[in-house]
Amino acid sequence: MKYKITISYDGTEYGGWQVQPNRKTIQELIQDALKIILRADCPITGSGRTDAGVHARGQTAHFSYEVPFEIPPFQYSLNALLPSDIRILKIDPIDEDFHARYNVKKKIYHYHLHLSPVQSPFHYRYRTQIHAPLNLNLLEESLPHLTGTHDFSAFRGAGCGSKDPVKTLYRIEMVPEEGGIHIEFEGDGFLYKMVRNIVGTLLQIASEKRPVSDLPKLLKSKDRKQAGPTAPAQGLFLHEVRY
Amino acid sequence: MKYKITISYDGTEYGGWQVQPNRKTIQELIQDALKIILRADCPITGSGRTDAGVHARGQTAHFSYEVPFEIPPFQYSLNALLPSDIRILKIDPIDEDFHARYNVKKKIYHYHLHLSPVQSPFHYRYRTQIHAPLNLNLLEESLPHLTGTHDFSAFRGAGCGSKDPVKTLYRIEMVPEEGGIHIEFEGDGFLYKMVRNIVGTLLQIASEKRPVSDLPKLLKSKDRKQAGPTAPAQGLFLHEVRY
Repeated sequence: MKYKITISYDGTEYGGWQVQPNRKTIQELIQDALKIILRADCPITGSGRTDAGVHARGQTAHFSYEVPFEIPPFQYSLNALLPSDIRILKIDPIDEDFHARYNVKKKIYHYHLHLSPVQSPFHYRYRTQIHAPLNLNLLEESLPHLTGTHDFSAFRGAGCGSKDPVKTLYRIEMVPEEGGIHIEFEGDGFLYKMVRNIVGTLLQIASEKRPVSDLPKLLKSKDRKQAGPTAPAQGLFLHEVRY
Repeated sequence: MKYKITISYDGTEYGGWQVQPNRKTIQELIQDALKIILRADCPITGSGRTDAGVHARGQTAHFSYEVPFEIPPFQYSLNALLPSDIRILKIDPIDEDFHARYNVKKKIYHYHLHLSPVQSPFHYRYRTQIHAPLNLNLLEESLPHLTGTHDFSAFRGAGCGSKDPVKTLYRIEMVPEEGGIHIEFEGDGFLYKMVRNIVGTLLQIASEKRPVSDLPKLLKSKDRKQAGPTAPAQGLFLHEVRY
């Protein structure tokens, strides 16, 4: 039997999704909990990795296990074994040919910016505070330049394993929220650090350090060095994965 | 010059508001930061203490300092020296006869309960999760019994320094929120652990372990042993202090 799991986590304390030496990762802790319950190694495959410090409201993964089990007590035990900052939101039986990474149709990321002078102590783990004043009209003007199908090499992080730098962003939207804004990115796929590199560049534009007209040039250049810095991890949420 | 400060904090990592040996406290960290900026000891007086793990959206305190200073850069420096989970929201010059504790007219506390089977990883520090099903009608029916002026000795924590156990609760309200509820308590003053002891008793009633009709008897008994257990600290917020 194959199962799809939906996971939410506060990434603050972790070295990201993917198992790696020397740092606690979300994938590793879920696999450790599964091993205790199932008394067997049970590798899980995520929809993709999230970096150290990045959060998820709806990360997805799949695993296979042949002995049937009842889902509600299984989910309860899994959550009881996991730390409180990692929660299994759902476990769904799914077709044998489902693959959490290969079958992704859309991913949605949100990037949260706190723009008021004083950050709330309940938000600092989940938003990036910007002290400089931002021109949000320039930020909004920038978004249509990035929507659509483009070669996003200029926003591709070093060590990106994606074969194809051409991705489609269906929607980029700036949404006001108490004390700041968040930017929603909906696309068919994302290169490594692509959202954070885009946000870093948008922040340069909104703080009037470079013009909106740089964006088409940047995309054409395919040169990471010409784009802005990588925005910090803590503002980024993997919001949803759609199949 | 006398100043009133308004403070918000995530109490998770602290031994409460008030300075004490062997544990980091919020009062101590603010005093340490003031000492660095002002190059002099500058004791602050809070509206009252909050316990280890209790949060505040609007704790208040006062301090005096004779050399005039500009408030915005002073506030900025103070927040830069403080950890991100303690924020000075406001600094207001105030009359010399103001006293952060003696002049309190009203305090508002909120207690947050998460009632869905899976807690969000972004809320577990700020809500108490209740796994047993609750009868919220019984909870709502209980509230009028506690509103008004009563001797709250039955809900008074050991070590309470208050001279008078008679307090007035102007308003107790159950407010639905995503995944659960919170209960708002507005009163002229609160005994030590009074909100958490009331919530512990309301949870017994809502889980049908004791009848609503116990409440008037409990108040009359003035006996802490007859009331319910103390609800956990992490669900409690000092929401606002009014003068």
